[in-house]
Amino acid sequence: MLETALRLFEERGYDRTTMRAIAQEAGVSTGNAYYYFSSKEHLVQGFYDRIAAEHAAAVGPVLAGGPELADRIEGTLLRWLEVAEPYHRFAAQFFKNAADPESPLSPFSPESTTARERAVDVHRQVLAGSSTKTAPELAGRLPYLLWMMQMGLVLFWVYDRSPGAERSHRLVVRTAPIAARAIALSRFRVLRPLVRQLEDLLAEFLPDAHEAEAAR
Amino acid sequence: MLETALRLFEERGYDRTTMRAIAQEAGVSTGNAYYYFSSKEHLVQGFYDRIAAEHAAAVGPVLAGGPELADRIEGTLLRWLEVAEPYHRFAAQFFKNAADPESPLSPFSPESTTARERAVDVHRQVLAGSSTKTAPELAGRLPYLLWMMQMGLVLFWVYDRSPGAERSHRLVVRTAPIAARAIALSRFRVLRPLVRQLEDLLAEFLPDAHEAEAAR
Repeated sequence: MLETALRLFEERGYDRTTMRAIAQEAGVSTGNAYYYFSSKEHLVQGFYDRIAAEHAAAVGPVLAGGPELADRIEGTLLRWLEVAEPYHRFAAQFFKNAADPESPLSPFSPESTTARERAVDVHRQVLAGSSTKTAPELAGRLPYLLWMMQMGLVLFWVYDRSPGAERSHRLVVRTAPIAARAIALSRFRVLRPLVRQLEDLLAEFLPDAHEAEAAR
Repeated sequence: MLETALRLFEERGYDRTTMRAIAQEAGVSTGNAYYYFSSKEHLVQGFYDRIAAEHAAAVGPVLAGGPELADRIEGTLLRWLEVAEPYHRFAAQFFKNAADPESPLSPFSPESTTARERAVDVHRQVLAGSSTKTAPELAGRLPYLLWMMQMGLVLFWVYDRSPGAERSHRLVVRTAPIAARAIALSRFRVLRPLVRQLEDLLAEFLPDAHEAEAAR
């Protein structure tokens, strides 16, 4: 049913595809369809969870590989582009509905927590297996920061029309060493005030900081 | 006519508003309407140009003010939020059509060059009037980088539902000193390799670098 939904979203657009049409195409009753997925939003969450799971699997060799942080970041993001490629046309269709952070389809939404946590955890392993020492104040936030970098890549990739998303690949190859170097430099004394300001910013604006605060 | 168009875009949505309806509401013939604005896209460009002009005017006291870079960045971005506030509801309506960099409505598009250049020029003056010395390799790119930061703010602001866009204000107050400090630090020897990598990235990916390349 998820396959059918993704195909219809791609063909007709997300807004114009009804649950009834998805059920019909998938050959299940509308009642059964609602039993498995209580709304179109849940179908999209199913899609997020699937991409996150596929990526977590594909990234295994990178996480078990060498300790060079730039290579680990690059490998992780390139694997994401590979896993996501089959959904590229669908993603463009659909991005309009996910850009609003208040939408349940936003990667920042409470509804996306499972997929987000899974993705953040990949980046936690990227960092944990690397030889780069990080500024202690930032250590807890860094996996989220790398995930934000991944979200920036997603935004770029959604509208990337180069053959084989080649420009997205270039962006990863260019930015991975920059991110790795910035992380390594964050321990230098001269950068400490900057790191502290950044930490304050993240504490206030990162989605989970916000949730944690709201839950108090 | 621009006022009428903005009102109708806000009320009915951008996609559902026709040139004919705009002309009717504005009390001009459809032919005349097309004489002034050859398409809805041109109306939106008119809107961009207006915001850019209003911002350039509002930012005068900031540019003529003190040399502290953080204050200059903060003042410039806060003035933008003030100028843009009346268009907030319209912006959310409309953002979907501007997020695609291939759309003529994208701030990165060739069609938006006038408004973009005007906005970049404001940031050029922000930097020129400041007491902060910048890394010479980056000096030419920095106004664009600050403009990119402004675009990030716009993205955040479009979906900001806090009263009076208070969270967007907070974001400016938090990020302006970080940006100023990062710019000041870019001259340190330890950061030179990072600055050089960043320069390579920008040369490849900034919109006008891309245009310049295409024009060769």
